[in-house]
This record gives sequence, structure tokens and C-alpha cells, in this order.
Amino acid sequence: MIKKLTCGLLATMVATAALYPTNIMAQDQQPLTMPTLEDLIPGGETYRYTENLYGLQWWGDRCIKPEIDSLFAINPKNGKETLLTTRAKLNEVLEAAQLGKLSQLYSVQTPWPDKTQLLLALHGKYIVYDWKAAKVVAQQAVEKGAANMDYNAESGHIAYTVKNNLYVDNKKVTNEPEGIVCGQSVHRNEFGITKGTFWSPQGNLLAFYRMNESMVTPYPLVDITQRIGTVDAIRYPMAGMTSHKVQVGIYNPTTGNTLYLETGDPTDRYFTNIAWAPDERSLFLIELNRDQNHSKLCQYDAASGRLMGVLYEETHPKYVEPQQPIVFLPWDDTQFIYQSQRDGYNHLYLMSVNNSSPRQLTSGPWLVQSILGFNAKQKEVIIAATKESPLQSNIYKVRVKDGRLTPLDNGQGVHSARLSASGTYVIDNWSSPQVPRNIDIRSTANGKETARLLTAADPFRGLVMPTVETGTLKAADGKTDLYWRMLKPADFDPAKKYPVIVYVYGGPHAQMINANWMYAARGWDLYMANRGYILFTLDNRGSANRGLEFENCTFRHLGIEEGKDQVKGIEYLKSLPYVDAQRIGVHGWSFGGHMTTALMLRYPDVFKVGVAGGPVIDWKFYEVMYGERYMDTPQQNPEGYRECNLRNLAPRLKGHLLLIHDDHDRTCVPQHTLSFLKACVDARTYPDLFIYPTHDHNVLGRDRVHLHEKITRYFEDYL
Amino acid sequence: MIKKLTCGLLATMVATAALYPTNIMAQDQQPLTMPTLEDLIPGGETYRYTENLYGLQWWGDRCIKPEIDSLFAINPKNGKETLLTTRAKLNEVLEAAQLGKLSQLYSVQTPWPDKTQLLLALHGKYIVYDWKAAKVVAQQAVEKGAANMDYNAESGHIAYTVKNNLYVDNKKVTNEPEGIVCGQSVHRNEFGITKGTFWSPQGNLLAFYRMNESMVTPYPLVDITQRIGTVDAIRYPMAGMTSHKVQVGIYNPTTGNTLYLETGDPTDRYFTNIAWAPDERSLFLIELNRDQNHSKLCQYDAASGRLMGVLYEETHPKYVEPQQPIVFLPWDDTQFIYQSQRDGYNHLYLMSVNNSSPRQLTSGPWLVQSILGFNAKQKEVIIAATKESPLQSNIYKVRVKDGRLTPLDNGQGVHSARLSASGTYVIDNWSSPQVPRNIDIRSTANGKETARLLTAADPFRGLVMPTVETGTLKAADGKTDLYWRMLKPADFDPAKKYPVIVYVYGGPHAQMINANWMYAARGWDLYMANRGYILFTLDNRGSANRGLEFENCTFRHLGIEEGKDQVKGIEYLKSLPYVDAQRIGVHGWSFGGHMTTALMLRYPDVFKVGVAGGPVIDWKFYEVMYGERYMDTPQQNPEGYRECNLRNLAPRLKGHLLLIHDDHDRTCVPQHTLSFLKACVDARTYPDLFIYPTHDHNVLGRDRVHLHEKITRYFEDYL
Repeated sequence: MIKKLTCGLLATMVATAALYPTNIMAQDQQPLTMPTLEDLIPGGETYRYTENLYGLQWWGDRCIKPEIDSLFAINPKNGKETLLTTRAKLNEVLEAAQLGKLSQLYSVQTPWPDKTQLLLALHGKYIVYDWKAAKVVAQQAVEKGAANMDYNAESGHIAYTVKNNLYVDNKKVTNEPEGIVCGQSVHRNEFGITKGTFWSPQGNLLAFYRMNESMVTPYPLVDITQRIGTVDAIRYPMAGMTSHKVQVGIYNPTTGNTLYLETGDPTDRYFTNIAWAPDERSLFLIELNRDQNHSKLCQYDAASGRLMGVLYEETHPKYVEPQQPIVFLPWDDTQFIYQSQRDGYNHLYLMSVNNSSPRQLTSGPWLVQSILGFNAKQKEVIIAATKESPLQSNIYKVRVKDGRLTPLDNGQGVHSARLSASGTYVIDNWSSPQVPRNIDIRSTANGKETARLLTAADPFRGLVMPTVETGTLKAADGKTDLYWRMLKPADFDPAKKYPVIVYVYGGPHAQMINANWMYAARGWDLYMANRGYILFTLDNRGSANRGLEFENCTFRHLGIEEGKDQVKGIEYLKSLPYVDAQRIGVHGWSFGGHMTTALMLRYPDVFKVGVAGGPVIDWKFYEVMYGERYMDTPQQNPEGYRECNLRNLAPRLKGHLLLIHDDHDRTCVPQHTLSFLKACVDARTYPDLFIYPTHDHNVLGRDRVHLHEKITRYFEDYL
Repeated sequence: MIKKLTCGLLATMVATAALYPTNIMAQDQQPLTMPTLEDLIPGGETYRYTENLYGLQWWGDRCIKPEIDSLFAINPKNGKETLLTTRAKLNEVLEAAQLGKLSQLYSVQTPWPDKTQLLLALHGKYIVYDWKAAKVVAQQAVEKGAANMDYNAESGHIAYTVKNNLYVDNKKVTNEPEGIVCGQSVHRNEFGITKGTFWSPQGNLLAFYRMNESMVTPYPLVDITQRIGTVDAIRYPMAGMTSHKVQVGIYNPTTGNTLYLETGDPTDRYFTNIAWAPDERSLFLIELNRDQNHSKLCQYDAASGRLMGVLYEETHPKYVEPQQPIVFLPWDDTQFIYQSQRDGYNHLYLMSVNNSSPRQLTSGPWLVQSILGFNAKQKEVIIAATKESPLQSNIYKVRVKDGRLTPLDNGQGVHSARLSASGTYVIDNWSSPQVPRNIDIRSTANGKETARLLTAADPFRGLVMPTVETGTLKAADGKTDLYWRMLKPADFDPAKKYPVIVYVYGGPHAQMINANWMYAARGWDLYMANRGYILFTLDNRGSANRGLEFENCTFRHLGIEEGKDQVKGIEYLKSLPYVDAQRIGVHGWSFGGHMTTALMLRYPDVFKVGVAGGPVIDWKFYEVMYGERYMDTPQQNPEGYRECNLRNLAPRLKGHLLLIHDDHDRTCVPQHTLSFLKACVDARTYPDLFIYPTHDHNVLGRDRVHLHEKITRYFEDYL
């Protein structure tokens, strides 16, 4: 059973010759032009960005809108703008103080609701500027080579790193040799970890990660831009091999003392989701075993580093994956919200440091994506969730007392919101299949739009555009609905036969089809549809936003179920009279590169041409954290590793397969592709290859246009 | 003016459909079959080797012919064979002595004319076996990991290396750390150097090379076959950079003492062409400066290491390139032969240790290729030379008294000869365009064939074969004759238009067209001609066997003149009515990879498709010895390096260019190709790429078939 949700607005963009767009008029009588890759690929010289407002933020409950030359405050009740200051004025003061000058105001911050002060970073200094007094009220320099800057607005302290060591203000906090990294993200950014420093609420203490990776075997990347090539050796723990060891330290800037949490032997353990107690006296971590099937919410005493207690534990026969730190209720220092997929979907649970039993706040076959904050007065938590549709992200308030859920936006599309200090307003930056981007201010009292800050113009106005459709079909399990997206050429003729290119990702943590602008169709998809291809994408089982069971059916054999679902998509395509079943191609990057290669090899009679970017070929070459979560170790799961090792399928290659790898791919090391080439040479099969020197696990910036021209030529030559 | 030399025998192999070889009969009424790459490429499962006799050698003046199971002596006067011993007998004795057993007799040696003894190497031991007494008379074991074995038949000593150190018998002669290499070839095998140990005539002293390369920047090759990729760091001195330092040691096995020649500071100097005086009391070297424009023949005292004198010096505004050690006359310990290109061609000069002026022994617009030995009784030196034709190699004797030259073979083709102990006979292994291989014994008295040991059958009997033609055309200088070779499909039809593939090498030290079997046409050339292509090869200026001026016109701008000559070849092709001028491709490896890339970039409207293997892209990434000889250093010749750096031509790429590189290419490091890719990405041009993991500067063995299938597909797809 196929449901079709044609995107009406886009469907009207028809009646223009895809390849010869001369002198054909659209409804508004303006000639449409055929977009180029430079128009459609980020990094292109004429890339069509969707309009946006940069640097929008809250100053207490007033909205701050920076422009290049002016800084405005907006009254959220009515959208009325007030000029706060100008760049000219600001630069006059900065230059007088010999601090340099700003070239725009987008990056200034207003973290102090009760002060007329801006925070700005300039030439290696953090500067606090009072726009009312028109003077610099504080400045703090950082050491040369500083990175990972983490400024605490309460205390004014700055944590940062220089090379592998941690600094606070001008003091070197750690003094570790190469191989031990402090103050940076650990565990390869899994478990929701994105940084390595965590200020306590008042900024009196700094929790930080210390990772000893000296025992991790380095993988050699070669830098060919040097006079004679040099090695960039990255510590890359591969599945089943010795991994790094992580500790959590607490630094006290007042005393200059550092202590480390007494977690016991850190070997084969993960220390994730650091959160401070509101009183700064204890620190919460979610700890996991290397098997990733047992998590513990632990509370540590910040003064002694001792374990105070384990507040909650979760186990699962496959894996548990904590990705969100706990969040305390602003009106009760003893209660916090813990997020868990224990009922199959990520939901909120109210817990207490006193260890009373958890109370589930949200429930249902949809998931909470994030906590935006609280309205303390109303005792509400504001969240983003997928309740309307797995393709959408909408804003809700949840009454903590009884879990009552109230929608706060228009119920359409994908919303990204920032909550004001009191939690009474949100800045709602959203798009939908028909809306490139709108930015509204909404009241959390009733969800009403109180001001429209931006209505972005169609970035593709004046250009020939394909039509975009979506729908669902049944997965290979015969019961699960899967979402697909299809792009057809603007001059689509149902009497013709079209070649199809499947764009695939297919791995966990991502979804290719969303109800945002044009259903998240990518620029290259649009480009290829304009060239006469049907572009098709299906979010198979294993992908994001559909709950735990949907995701973990792939456990211990990544790529197999995913591939079966993709073939269901192909069966649907083949049922369409206008699809040329002999000309089906596939393209994807990273996990999508794995899928592309796997589909070419497992279904050699279905797919004629594939382009696999940065593919995983053998999960044993992938890293410990992500790899073992889904595959266990090669020692525990030899059959799964064997079955999913695409080298073993090298003899099956029949069509044209182009593998593209970056020579500085730190995520999916070049060994994947190179070892696959060797397997194909051994098997007398004939893939093609391209390497992008100096790039890292994708080709970004200007060269991204080259990449997509390269991919285009391959499909044009062979599909 | 084009001369055509059609190969008659091959030209008769016609009248069969190249691509549909069914039921078409050749003159002998046997159906011909179409050869596959497995038939034509070395490494292929059914590769058609030309028959040969392995292990043929002299035992004094008797010819020894080993077979798998039997060892024969052949009387050179009449070819009569005598059984010397059998493998069964030999193995019986070896096994009784617990020495293992031989699986064939091809590798046994007969270095002692006056003894009925064999030398054989088995399981890490050198064994001397007396076939008359049927017993093992000596054995000498070497250390585990031994390489570069050099056995001296006079003394019975064995020199060899283990890792970077030199051993003699069971004694470790040097004890150097990593970065210092003893007893191995130095200066990257340039200047005719192929080994690192040099026994004195009676084996009482061992001269050896010691190379300190610890100051040479390593280039990282990555081995992706390890569990996690590892670095194989090779010391690779790139043009203009710090190079290694070489010394020459002399080891005395009797005393155990080692001394080093007192050459002075070895920085930026080359020590080449080591030769011993017959009395073992002095050692001769040809020394060069780093500029390679000044050579000195130096004599050192073997007892003290002191320089005794400089016997001869050569300078040249471009370069001098000594490649042959001096050779003493067996009948006069004071006189030796020195080889030099000083008159423009490599010729023999008689010199004396007493420093009397040299006397030129050979002369003319042709070159001596090697000295095979002497007939001491007749006071003749036996040589190989190109006197008949630059495409040929023939055997001559030169009367030392007056330089009278007498041919010793049939005056055809390419001869490879081994001289008997007294110099009265040669084993003459030869081929010509019509003769796959014959092996004769000839008398050096009159050149007469006294016995025919082998008449190899046509390795391609029963197969469809293209026709092979050669001819000459004028180089871009308007005066020099260049030789070309052309293969046409067996069913060539002059009324049709054929695509052309140019196979090119083009660099110094090599010649692609020789008057050996099928004019040296390669298996892939035959294969592609069978597929309907014309295969064309031209030996441009800069290539071998044509004299110094022909070669050194490329000095300081490698690839430029060579390319102009190749374009002369294209002009000739375009003049032929049956050539499709719109479909011209080019393929080559190493210097030929450079030429291929250069031709695609400098003549983008001439060449539609190119396949460049292991190309030099930027001479600054090539090594010091070869690179600076032809290009000087980047510091001395910045314009030349800029002009010849193909990265600078990346924007000109128009056709389809496939670059193939080995990931363990130690000659032409992968940086060449990878840096070119980067230049093309920057320039928005679109080459293609393939990498052969684990291979080194060519794809040999079984994978060579894969390589040629890959190359074939590229031309089939795009030409």
C-alpha cells in the first residue's frame, strides 16, 4: 500500500524542458533558467542559500537581532524593534582600547539579561562591552593556539585547550604528554558528546574530560602537500582492539586544584552525559560498559570525587544509548529529567536525587528529540518531538505535574526553537515542504505567533525545479511503513521511461526525508532530476526518528536488513510504468557508501551503477564506540563481521562502481576502500576509484562542486 | 621520408576476423583462436612463454645444460650431450647428509672448470657436491634472514646481508644502526650499480658499500593489509634535498679487519663502478660530483685505503654517466678497458695503470653495450654492440692490438651471449622479428654455429595475431631518424578507419622497439590490435641506444622534446588514410606515465584518452640520482622544474585520463599522482584514478592481467 503525498506547490513548477531550457515561460511569464552545480551545491560560487537571520538570540525575554552594522532588540509581544547600538559606535570604543574592530555584529552575544553588556571574541580575546556606557568593562586574553573555547558568563572564566592540554584563563590546568588529551570531546563524539569542558552552573568549578589514548594503535594518514609526504598518525581504536581510557576531572579556578572522579579502572568503559547539580556540589554521569548494554546514572561528590550513588540503571539485550544529560527542574533542585528509550521511544522521565521511582512524563509511538528548557513559573518543560509525524519536528510544552502535552507551533514542518530566559517565548525557525524558512516569535502560553521576523524568499526562484513527492511503502518485514521521496524532472512525461538514481544513507542517527523545505531534497538530487533522472530516497529500517525497534533490527548485521528495505523501494519503482528498470543507479556517502557498495554487490542484477563515497567496507576497520554498539566486537560476532565485510562480496561486482575516498578521512579511514580494491583485484572484478587529497570524510567547500560534477559524469557515462 | 620494414612472416598471418574468430581457417587449415589476456600477459594463467633453456652455463669450455632430472655436458664442437649426473643420485646423497633435496637442477652452478663439482644453494646453505665422487665436499650455512648472497668460488667465502648489516660466512662484518645500510646496492641503482659486495679476484678481500641514509627524509608508504594500516617509511632523497652518504669498505676475512677508503667527505658524491686490480692490491672507483658533470677514475690502495691516483677524468656541460666498471686484460695486469661516451657513443678505450694516454679501441656511430669477456690466447675482447642497427644487439670480437672488429653471429636480431672460460665459444641466445628464440653455440674463431641447442616454437601458434610493421620518421628537429612500430589487426582493411593507441615510454635507458621477436611488441599491444585498434610506438629522442646527443637533448626539460617527437608520430599516423584521427589514445608507465600525462595535457586536441601508470608528475618528487642528472636541482633549474611540472598543466586536461599508481611504489612515490589529483580538483578538471594496493612501481604477477583488463576497459569505454 503506497501513500502519496505530492508537494503541491512544487508540482506546479512544470512545463519546462529539463535539458533545453530556452525561451520556455513559467506561469509568471519569467523565463526559468537551468540551475548549475554552482547554484545548487554548498561551496558553489553562486550557491542559492536560503535567507536566514544570523545571531538571533535572547537577552532575558527580549529577542536580539544582530545585523552587520546594527544591533536591535525586539519586543516579543509585538515584534517592535529598538536599536541598541551600532557597529560604528562599538568599533570606535574597541579601536580606542586597541582591541581591533568587528566586521559584523552577528557573532556578539547577550548572556546577561540584567546588564546592557555584549560578549564578543576578537583577536584571541574575550571582551565584555557595555553598550549603554559605551565602554569595555572586561577583557580576557587566551593563549596562542587556543581552541575549544568555553566561556562561562556567570564567572567570566574561559576554559580552552592548546594542543592536548587544558587551560583556564591564563593558567595551564593539565600538563600531559602527547597521547593524553584533556578538555576535548572523547569517545569519538558518540553518546551525544560534543565537547570536553563543563562549567558548573555558577562557573565555580569546571568538569573536564581527560582521555589517555597512548595505548591506541595509530592509523597513518599521508599528507602529500608537504615537500615530501608526511604522516598524520591518528589514534584510531578499531572494533575489538585496545581502546582509550577516559577520566573526568574537576578543576577549581579559585584554588587551582584538580581532582579526578573515583570511577575505578576506566578500561573499556564510557563516561558520558556530564551534568552538574544546581548546587554545584555533585556531578552526574551516565556510565556504560564496553558492551554498551548496561548504563548507570551515577552521582559523584564534586569535592571528594567519590561516588555518591547509582541513581538508575538500564540494560538491554542489544544496546542502550544514552545521548542526553539529565536536566534539573529549575524550581526543584532535587528533581531532574532523564531521557530513555526504555519503552521503545525516547521519552522523558522525572527522577529524584532521593532515588524515588521514576515517573514517565511523555509516552507514545513518537519520540522526544530535545529539551529546549522550562517555563519555571508554569512548571512546564518545553520540548521538540516527532508527535505529528516521524518526518516532522514540532514544539510542545509538557506540564510536569501530569505530563499534559500542548503543541506550541503550527503543527507543520520542522521547527528549530530557542527558548527565552523565563520560558515564555520561543524564536521558532522553521520550514516545511512549501516554506523555505520562516522565523517567528511565539508565546509558550498559547503557541500563538506574536511576530514574524523573516519570510525567506524561495532560494530557487527563477530556476527550473523538479517536482518532489513523498509516500510510504512496506518494509521487508511486511509491516513497517517506510518513507520515500521522489524527484521527477520538471518536464516529466509519464509516457517516457526514466533512469533512476537512489540516494541512500540508511544508517542510524539520520533520516534523509524530513518535512522541511522540499522534503530535504539535496541540491545534487535537484540537479540530476533536472538532467532527466528520477531521484529516489527511502529511509530504511535502522534509520532515525522511528524508535528503538525500528533502529535495532540491524543489530550484529549492519547493512543486511537495510538493503532488503532498499530493494522494496526498487520493487515499488519497477511497478511504475515510467521507470526504466534496466537503468537504476545508487549513490551514498559514509554509511551510505557502505549501503551503495553493499547494494551493488548483493543485488548485482538490480543496480547498474553505484557511486560510494567514504564507505565502510569492513566493520572491523571502524571505530570501537559506534562499531561495537551495532556489531559487537569481531571476537564476539565473527559471523556478523564476515557477513557484513564487503571484501567478501568483491567477486560479485558486476555493474560500474566508483569508490571515492578522502585521503584524510579520520572517520572512515582509507584502508576501507583500499582493502576493497585489493579484494576486487584478487577477485578479478573492476571497481573505479577517486581520491580527494586533503579532505576529511566528505568533500566540503569549493571542491564539493568538483565532487558532484565527478559523480554526475560517472552516472552520465554508465547509467 | 618514411621507410617501412614490414615483417614478412607476420604479415602472412591475415584473413581472420579479429573479433569473431569462428570457423575461419588459416593457411594450414587449423582454426585460429583469439588469444585472451591470460594468454598474452605475463602472470596470466595460460601465458604463452617462449620456450627457453634454463641454467645453461659454461664449465670451462664445456656447455652445461641442466634439466629437471638430469645434468648434461655438451661438447661445443659438435653439440654432443653427455649425462653428468641425475637429480635422483644427487638427492640420495643430499638426503643422506640431511641437507634436504632439490626439486630441479636448473639452479646448480659449475664454477670450477678443473673439478667435477656443483655449487648449489639449499635451505640456507651453500653446498659443494662432487658428482664423480657422489659426495658433499663442502657446505657453508648463512644466518637466518640472509639476502644479497654473493658466493666467491675461488675462496668459498659467502658475503650476504641480514637487514642492514653485512655478514661474511658466519661473521657479522658491520654493526650499524637503522639508517645505515651495508653490503647493498647504493645510489638507487643508478650508474650501473646493482649490488653492494665485490670480491677480489681470488676472494681474499671483499669491497662493500656502506650507505648512511639516516639524514634522508623518509617517505611514508601505507600498508593497508595490516589489521590497522602501518607505515613503511622509505628513505627517499628527493631532487635538491639532502642525500645519503656512501663509503666503500674493504673487509679481510682472514684478519677480520675492515678499512674504509680515504675518499674524503662523501657529502654529495657518487662512488660507482667498483673494480679490483687483478693482483687484489688496489681498487678502482669512478667517482662523480653531485652535479654529475665531472667523473674521476680513482685507484685506491687496498691495504691502506689511500688514494693512489686519479687515472682519468671526464667532464661534460650536461652530464657524464659511467655505467661500466673497468675490466683488466687477462694477459696484462697493467692494462684495462674503460668505457666512455666521450665521442658521443659508448666505446672502448684501452688504458694503463701507468697513466699512459688512452687508446680508443672501437668507434663509429653505434655503441658498445657490454663486454662479454676475452679470448686471452687471441688477445681479443668479445663485446655486444649495436653496429648493425640501433634496433639490434650483435656479438663481435675486437682485436686489442689494432681494434679490428669481427662479427660473430648471424647479423640479425638481438643476441644475448655467454662466453666460455677460454673465450673460444659463446652460448648465443637470440631472437629476431621472425624467430621467437634460438640458442646456438658459436665459435669465436669464425662465428660459425657449431650446435643448435634450441629452436623455440612460435609461442603464439594457433592464435590470431596482428601484423607488425616498423619504419622510421624524422624527429621534431627535422633531421634525426626515429624508429616506430605499428600493429594492425589481422583482418586489417585499409578502407576502414581505425582508432590508434600509442604505447610510449620515451625516457633514457630504454628502447621500446628492438629487432627481437615481433619487434618487441608487448602482449597487450597484440591483444588490443586483435580488438581492432592500431597500436603505435615511437622511440623518441631521449631514449636509449642512439648515442649521447640523441639522449641528452632533453637535458633540463624532460618530456618536452620527447613530446614533440611523439607528435611527429601522430602527424604520420594522421597521414594514413585508415587512421581515425579523432580517436587517438596513449598509454605508458613510469617515464611513460609522465609522457602519457604530458601528452594529454600539452596536446589536448590530439589525444582523446590516456592511461598513465606510475607517472612522474613533478620531477621535484623524483629521486636525486636520476632526477638531477637530467634536470639538475630545483634550485639550479627552477624554470625547467616549473615547465615540466604537470600539476601546472592540470587546467588543460580535456580528454579522459586514467592515472594508475601502486600504493607501494618505491620508485615513483604515490605523491606524484595524488598531488596531481589535487591540482586537477583545484583546476576543476576530471582525471580518473586507480590504485593497486601492495604493488611496487608496476603491477606484476597474477594481478598484471587485472591491470590490463582495467586499461582495456578504459580505452573501450572512452576511445
